[in-house]
Amino acid sequence: MEITHIEHIGIAVKSLETAIPFYENVLGLKCYNVEEVVDQKVKTAFFKVGQTKIELLESTDPEGAIGKFIEKKGEGLHHIAYAANDVQTSLNEVSAKGVQLIDKAPRKGAEGLNIAFLHPKSTCGVLTELCEDPSKKQV
Amino acid sequence: MEITHIEHIGIAVKSLETAIPFYENVLGLKCYNVEEVVDQKVKTAFFKVGQTKIELLESTDPEGAIGKFIEKKGEGLHHIAYAANDVQTSLNEVSAKGVQLIDKAPRKGAEGLNIAFLHPKSTCGVLTELCEDPSKKQV
Repeated sequence: MEITHIEHIGIAVKSLETAIPFYENVLGLKCYNVEEVVDQKVKTAFFKVGQTKIELLESTDPEGAIGKFIEKKGEGLHHIAYAANDVQTSLNEVSAKGVQLIDKAPRKGAEGLNIAFLHPKSTCGVLTELCEDPSKKQV
Repeated sequence: MEITHIEHIGIAVKSLETAIPFYENVLGLKCYNVEEVVDQKVKTAFFKVGQTKIELLESTDPEGAIGKFIEKKGEGLHHIAYAANDVQTSLNEVSAKGVQLIDKAPRKGAEGLNIAFLHPKSTCGVLTELCEDPSKKQV
């Protein structure tokens, strides 16, 4: 697998309305996109920091993954997403190495990326996402 | 405050001996430095991913911050560190905005950086570090 950079860091927050002003007014970052991802039961807000994005995640449904995470652990760092050139090939590779997958094939995530998650049981406790930008995919 | 990029992401692990092979053999990253930070009661391992580093943190003392974190929450994402040009000025700025500080002045961290932590109570649950590389500081 070839990882070029960290695409984003996912952070679970109780409220975008409270969190966005912290990232803008305290850290001086600029929110450039707010988007609901119905499939994942979240509303997201994005900030660019160099090569990497901060993705704030507010739950839209207590039964969704972020709703359950906040219920159990509170607000905080949720996942790390690495930019890979070919997610399906990467999934096949890591699966062959015994890594447990949450997604066996890429699906659509926020900002039109193809994404897939590896299971934290296989990644030293870190929910790990691989993602590719289909508009930049090298074939 | 001017943040240029994410300097590193800190990840608490039970054992570097187990975690380093995951990052090297599964994700294909290369560990370029292992360093003990006696002050912080940790042994660290670093990987470069684009502009950002992954910093794995293994506790050397159950009473240290990482020892307590793993005892309470298990392995996982621990903190996010932003590269700032002048940490002391940034601390003064955010403190004036009502942010609770863990460090009122920068101290030495791994890799010779000047570092300071903001309190997660003031940062939507994310332990947030500011750091500057004194060798690159613009005066």
